[in-house]
Amino acid sequence: MIHYAKKLACFSLLFSLFTSFANAQTNRTPNIIIILADDLGYGDLGSYGHPTIRTPNLDKMALEGTRFTQFYVAANVCTPSRAALLTGRLPVRSGIFGKRGVFFTNSANGLPHNEITIAEALKTKGYQTALVGKWHLGSQPEYLPLQHGFDYYFGLPYSNDMGKVGSVPNMTNQNPPLPLYRNNEVIETEPDQRLLTKRYTTEVVGFIKKNKAKPFFLYYASPFPHVPLYASSDFSGKSKRGLYGDVVEELDWSVGQIFATLREQKLDKNTLVIFLSDNGPWQMKALAPGTGGSAGLLYEAKGSTYEGGMRVPAIAWGSGLVQPNTVSSAIVTSMDLYPTILHLANAELPTDRTLDGADIQELLSGKKASVTDVVYFYDSDRLHAIRKGPWKAHFITHPSYSAEAPVPHDPPLLYNLEADPSEKFEVGNEHPEVIDDLKKAYEKHKAGIKPVPPLLDAIIPVK
Amino acid sequence: MIHYAKKLACFSLLFSLFTSFANAQTNRTPNIIIILADDLGYGDLGSYGHPTIRTPNLDKMALEGTRFTQFYVAANVCTPSRAALLTGRLPVRSGIFGKRGVFFTNSANGLPHNEITIAEALKTKGYQTALVGKWHLGSQPEYLPLQHGFDYYFGLPYSNDMGKVGSVPNMTNQNPPLPLYRNNEVIETEPDQRLLTKRYTTEVVGFIKKNKAKPFFLYYASPFPHVPLYASSDFSGKSKRGLYGDVVEELDWSVGQIFATLREQKLDKNTLVIFLSDNGPWQMKALAPGTGGSAGLLYEAKGSTYEGGMRVPAIAWGSGLVQPNTVSSAIVTSMDLYPTILHLANAELPTDRTLDGADIQELLSGKKASVTDVVYFYDSDRLHAIRKGPWKAHFITHPSYSAEAPVPHDPPLLYNLEADPSEKFEVGNEHPEVIDDLKKAYEKHKAGIKPVPPLLDAIIPVK
Repeated sequence: MIHYAKKLACFSLLFSLFTSFANAQTNRTPNIIIILADDLGYGDLGSYGHPTIRTPNLDKMALEGTRFTQFYVAANVCTPSRAALLTGRLPVRSGIFGKRGVFFTNSANGLPHNEITIAEALKTKGYQTALVGKWHLGSQPEYLPLQHGFDYYFGLPYSNDMGKVGSVPNMTNQNPPLPLYRNNEVIETEPDQRLLTKRYTTEVVGFIKKNKAKPFFLYYASPFPHVPLYASSDFSGKSKRGLYGDVVEELDWSVGQIFATLREQKLDKNTLVIFLSDNGPWQMKALAPGTGGSAGLLYEAKGSTYEGGMRVPAIAWGSGLVQPNTVSSAIVTSMDLYPTILHLANAELPTDRTLDGADIQELLSGKKASVTDVVYFYDSDRLHAIRKGPWKAHFITHPSYSAEAPVPHDPPLLYNLEADPSEKFEVGNEHPEVIDDLKKAYEKHKAGIKPVPPLLDAIIPVK
Repeated sequence: MIHYAKKLACFSLLFSLFTSFANAQTNRTPNIIIILADDLGYGDLGSYGHPTIRTPNLDKMALEGTRFTQFYVAANVCTPSRAALLTGRLPVRSGIFGKRGVFFTNSANGLPHNEITIAEALKTKGYQTALVGKWHLGSQPEYLPLQHGFDYYFGLPYSNDMGKVGSVPNMTNQNPPLPLYRNNEVIETEPDQRLLTKRYTTEVVGFIKKNKAKPFFLYYASPFPHVPLYASSDFSGKSKRGLYGDVVEELDWSVGQIFATLREQKLDKNTLVIFLSDNGPWQMKALAPGTGGSAGLLYEAKGSTYEGGMRVPAIAWGSGLVQPNTVSSAIVTSMDLYPTILHLANAELPTDRTLDGADIQELLSGKKASVTDVVYFYDSDRLHAIRKGPWKAHFITHPSYSAEAPVPHDPPLLYNLEADPSEKFEVGNEHPEVIDDLKKAYEKHKAGIKPVPPLLDAIIPVK
């Protein structure tokens, strides 16, 4: 057997050398595209069951790839979720937490420079890297994307409601005018947000075409459907769902342009594309009821550690990399993308720090049905809940965007998420052994977290 | 132009004569199959966004056909919904309403004989007709399916919780033992319900094979996922969703067997298949929390005139008859199937009565994007709500399965269902003209209903 295995390995090596000479295009490490929607709810795409929002391009991506039904982000709001996605680490480890929840225009800090983003890791392997869209990991010059591994940046440094226009178009802020960056320069302020999806699409398509000869990492972080909502005249008023639907349908169009470009540029055989949302829908109950998205059958929304806040629509696509025509209910987190992408790029995983994701390459390709089964639900640095297999235990609950104090639960509230995805039926009394097990897991995880200071709260001194 | 049109018509006639000789199979009127699930919720299929129930056969049916996202049944419980489906008329016209809500084992009445079922109408055109499964339109001998146009019947005459076993397996009833009929004979009592889906599938497949030479109408009314839930050993314990998921997955398998049979028998080019549910999910809050289905993002469930009670998953499939690869948000009701199917079968529509459905043949085939835009939401004979276009006005609301009195609303509660499918945001104050319009439509419709006595409440005299 050993002899045979050696021969096989030798043959494989020769074969791979041969094919890499023969076809540099398909045997080089794959291009990576992450498309991140902002505040898109679990129930807001056609393939996730929305009745009136039409998303044919994302539905096609799902059909040609794998659509995940139990995919989680690492936080229930924007900044920490994005930090975790790019670093593969829980925000509680990097300090991306605090009373303010996210970075604001006057925040002093940014993602620490000792964190290694996917972009930085892929730079070591010769990737061209770009961020088009929302950053939200620090807007002071030293924290902008080019200082975190991106070769190119075009977009807004934070949320689209952090300029002069607030969360609804007739609400104004005292903030500086919304800056649109190209690399480290502000090229415009208060850009016409109706044109952002079109402009970002042009940037994304341009980057792909320009960099087709090298492997690239493209992080396309749409500002939408975060409020205030804006669609171009091609989409405005076209969706039955109203402006929210218009905006999602324009984002879907933008995704379609990416796939058209990949096919046109013959990059569709060697590119991994991941689409996901950064957290649940922002329901805007107080300011603008009805403008927010839908978490579908999930309970609660953005800002919550119930499922609606942290389980997101997520689709993976990639010829030879992702199993086509698949719906997967495997438990996955956004932090799994870090080791997976580094593996695909042959980049080294950092060994001097805790990574919170698992390599899901074999899950994507269909070789394995699941890789991990544990999810941590943090609200800032407070661990609210744990999921392990079908079971989720809430140790602390808190209505999203509420002034009420968080409510501790001892014993924790227990739900079987596979049978009861809507978290309707508390079943702790029937499963004391599960409660015990999750309590231990909760304490063990908390004990393993080294305290670091919160980075979200410091503000720049007023001069 | 006229000359050309005449020539074209003449050529068409000749061509159609030629092809009807050449290929009787594909030019005869199509076979019709209606598959009716029992208490399946809007959110319970993979293609409607359920995270852990796997329904590959129904999802494939949806991909090869048209999946409807705004399809309504005519009532929020079983008996009146089925009466409307088979007669194309609101239950308030046929008397299929009353305090008891549905027919029970001791009900004296059944569907009146002056109603013309789809089966009766299609018999006039030489169709072979069968019901496999649940009838629930009268269990006295004179009301059984063979007395309503079906050539063959195999199944239970009412719900599967109306025998010795109640809505949950450990609950017993004082009813007579559950009768399993073949035609007009009881061939078994209290059949092993774990085997029902398999046995019904055998019957359905057998009927299709036996009748492939003639056009047929097959009405397959599954007893599930109505409670009590039972799955065969092939499916029991297999779904992540628990027994409810097992049962839905076995029903999905059964649907797969139908398609396999149609393909094997070369009937897949001339058969219209419709899949739908009879009403929303029965959530069993009091008796067995967690066993009921999910209405997805819709509010409320079986028994309610909110969307979750009456909007159902519905898929149409048929080569040349139904546009493939389509998601339609057209407003459709189950009563539209009556004129549509009669049209396809070249059967005459009755002209001596009001029909409440519209012919949707051109909607199914993709020639039209919508046909009707009005839906009436009845609870028994009380008109609770009207939908017209995107707008739904609730004149009366009532929590489902509640002892509380129905609550009248003047002005009615107004929701925009296209923008707000979850009926979360009441917008009456912003649209007084819509309120006026819907009030008029409400009164006009009510005035057009000729009162008939309720048929659900009479019980057979105890001997």
